[in-house]
Amino acid sequence: MCPSIEETPTNGAANGHTNGKADEFTPIEARPNPVPHHKSSPYQPVGDFLSNISRFKIIESTLREGEQFANAYFDLEAKIKIAKALDEFGVDYIELTSPAASEQSRLDCEAICKLGLKAKILTHVRCNMEDAKIAVQTGVDGLDVVIGTSSFLREHSHGKDMTYIKNAALEVIQYVKSQGKEIRFSSEDSFRSDLVDLLSLYSAVDKVGVNRVGIADTVGCASPRQVYDLVRTLRGVVSCDIETHFHNDSGCAIANAYCALEAGATHIDTSVLGIGERNGITPLGGLMARMIVADRDYVMGKYNIKKLKEVEELVAEMVEVNIPFNNYITGFCAFTHKAGIHAKAILNNPSTYEIISPADFGMSRYVHFASRLTGWNAIKSRADQLGYNMTDAQYKEVTAQIKLMADVKKITLDDTDAIISAYHHNIVNGEKKPLLEGLSAEDQAKIDAAEQKLGTVKEKRQLDAEAAADAPPAKKR
Amino acid sequence: MCPSIEETPTNGAANGHTNGKADEFTPIEARPNPVPHHKSSPYQPVGDFLSNISRFKIIESTLREGEQFANAYFDLEAKIKIAKALDEFGVDYIELTSPAASEQSRLDCEAICKLGLKAKILTHVRCNMEDAKIAVQTGVDGLDVVIGTSSFLREHSHGKDMTYIKNAALEVIQYVKSQGKEIRFSSEDSFRSDLVDLLSLYSAVDKVGVNRVGIADTVGCASPRQVYDLVRTLRGVVSCDIETHFHNDSGCAIANAYCALEAGATHIDTSVLGIGERNGITPLGGLMARMIVADRDYVMGKYNIKKLKEVEELVAEMVEVNIPFNNYITGFCAFTHKAGIHAKAILNNPSTYEIISPADFGMSRYVHFASRLTGWNAIKSRADQLGYNMTDAQYKEVTAQIKLMADVKKITLDDTDAIISAYHHNIVNGEKKPLLEGLSAEDQAKIDAAEQKLGTVKEKRQLDAEAAADAPPAKKR
Repeated sequence: MCPSIEETPTNGAANGHTNGKADEFTPIEARPNPVPHHKSSPYQPVGDFLSNISRFKIIESTLREGEQFANAYFDLEAKIKIAKALDEFGVDYIELTSPAASEQSRLDCEAICKLGLKAKILTHVRCNMEDAKIAVQTGVDGLDVVIGTSSFLREHSHGKDMTYIKNAALEVIQYVKSQGKEIRFSSEDSFRSDLVDLLSLYSAVDKVGVNRVGIADTVGCASPRQVYDLVRTLRGVVSCDIETHFHNDSGCAIANAYCALEAGATHIDTSVLGIGERNGITPLGGLMARMIVADRDYVMGKYNIKKLKEVEELVAEMVEVNIPFNNYITGFCAFTHKAGIHAKAILNNPSTYEIISPADFGMSRYVHFASRLTGWNAIKSRADQLGYNMTDAQYKEVTAQIKLMADVKKITLDDTDAIISAYHHNIVNGEKKPLLEGLSAEDQAKIDAAEQKLGTVKEKRQLDAEAAADAPPAKKR
Repeated sequence: MCPSIEETPTNGAANGHTNGKADEFTPIEARPNPVPHHKSSPYQPVGDFLSNISRFKIIESTLREGEQFANAYFDLEAKIKIAKALDEFGVDYIELTSPAASEQSRLDCEAICKLGLKAKILTHVRCNMEDAKIAVQTGVDGLDVVIGTSSFLREHSHGKDMTYIKNAALEVIQYVKSQGKEIRFSSEDSFRSDLVDLLSLYSAVDKVGVNRVGIADTVGCASPRQVYDLVRTLRGVVSCDIETHFHNDSGCAIANAYCALEAGATHIDTSVLGIGERNGITPLGGLMARMIVADRDYVMGKYNIKKLKEVEELVAEMVEVNIPFNNYITGFCAFTHKAGIHAKAILNNPSTYEIISPADFGMSRYVHFASRLTGWNAIKSRADQLGYNMTDAQYKEVTAQIKLMADVKKITLDDTDAIISAYHHNIVNGEKKPLLEGLSAEDQAKIDAAEQKLGTVKEKRQLDAEAAADAPPAKKR
């Protein structure tokens, strides 16, 4: 066992996310990137006066949308823990379940308002005076009011027409403002609502001084260019801020948030791990992954992103889910490199195959050596770590041996290290010690056969290739 | 326990993805959607001659990109199982690891070519004659050749200049075509390559008759509008097909694939669950979720999407990962609805809060009743299922009782059913039986306190509201 593995903080491996594969990974020490990640693309979009990529705000809705996740049950103690963790992370707003949902929801709302957090506290209520009055009395900084405007929701949910909706909105907005609170008015299912209806409504609420209007892809149907078009159109109609809320049913929640910001949206709704109705919304961690690529300085300067893993682990434990193996940034494989061609370049310069620097999030990078896809540069680096010094030809030969064994059986990092060590021993001492001890007779036979075959095959392939070079061309496209 | 739960196929609950929460969900029978899902949005993009949304092809790379996933070790038997499952699903191409990677990789490639699958078999090789010759001899239908073109990769990986790359590409393409095989030429890290270099290279390979050129976001940095712009520009330069490959480091792999198709790309690379280097690429299931929203007829007509869950479970088991809780379509909560306002509308018409019909994928929908966020419509529907018939006022009252208990403790579906049953019993028999048996003295005390407080609070809130209505307005925005 390589001692450096135990000394170095691991990327999820120690936290049960790797299914016992920790021994096959090894961290490569963080190296300074000669080119900052965020300046690495010649195709950064041309500066655009509409874009809020470099000045967005987060409305964190784990305690509202997240409470609608199938597994979520947050008692007050849990809510306070989450609210404090989000506040330390640095989110701009924390959105809470409507105090009209239940008496305990109301009490929780009051209690969180009294914590004295830096983040502003919002609650999310239906667009009616009764809910608005209950909300105002909890001590929140603002109200996010919502009403369904699509024909689907007008017909099958609340059954109200657009005139009713507009009048209800104006009454609620004027009341909330009169109470000195911030107010957002949002449609639900905005991408299946009539555009003229939407714009009329938003224009009307903008005129009475709403702080934000909201666009919500409630069913997760919107695509990035649709989002860009709708937000950009809306940006020309209202002067207030624009908040956006994207469900992830069709896999575009992060991309849609990004395109919304490009089109002039100002606020993005997130939840930790994306938890919410169905498969959820834009995840906080995923948004950070997207935005740090776009503007690292803004993200690093504003959010305490080293806290991300802790916040995710807190919420994952409370809602009894595993952090997905492929989670953004904190998933166990997010910074693991395997193919030989990747490993070589990563060793030369991490920016070659990494757009996000793991160190920014307090994470480490791994290069996976023990596989048939490994390359001799990766093995050379590993040998260096182990203190062996050989020629390039020798590194190439031991790599070929490792690949051959990885073809026959699944090998671990320990196996790789043992092979390198035995190979080095044989060179120094002129011996022919077996490269891997304790192989079963069956595996050894397979390896011998593979070695012999490889020799024969290489010869045959060379002959075939020479023959093919003389052959007439086959059919053309 | 409601017997219908056991009789109905469950959405992951029976497969260990729900962390033992199966008893809190209940399936709602599939209802015909009055409006087909794919025609439900008034904002479908206007028909666009560039777009290939309705004629895309899938290059499934679980056996190439997926083999680069940290946990993947596929022996031949595993590869054959995966290839057959993908073929039954109906993918257009199956891409395999380079036969130059190792001798076993070469043998596996030959064996899969001999299976006689409907899908075309490709292998993915470096852009050099040696690899191309080995690949051609395996019996594959085509070669996907790749070379890094970004300054990062030119400097830190292979060290070649653009002239060398172009000459190597032309030689390999002409050789592969002469052997009667399909050929794709792709850059690596296309979004950090120089645009003029890229277009010159692609124009040159197009002229010698390459079948496809490939755009690859190797590091996962590209955003949807960048993808649209680059693919659309390329579409004007080459006449061959355009394949695209998107990593998911910054959460845009599905969205980028969609925008690429909108801009005229023809082929999308996927892997099952997105497995690949780091956190992977566009997932097959996620792409299906996106595309069925865009063109249900095409997806349903071409792919055997009811096989999705089976294919995902096969691969997840082989690479020893759990299917993420929030996985597209097959995650345990993908079709679970919780908030009262959602549940009501879903019961009226599933299209209100569902853009994808679970039945298309052989899945079921769940409405979550046992929570403080429940609504009386959901409880009424549940009572109907249980065979109880009450007045709306009675449903509202029992719902209030359920919400009150859910405020005090986490309740299960069994608890909800017991409360409805006891409430109905009390009405019919004029009794005052406790609504939930077996409560601890502590919980009962909390419920009594909550009930009393609720009465008092309602009174006080009414008084406050009356007082507030008479008060002068607070500060304005």
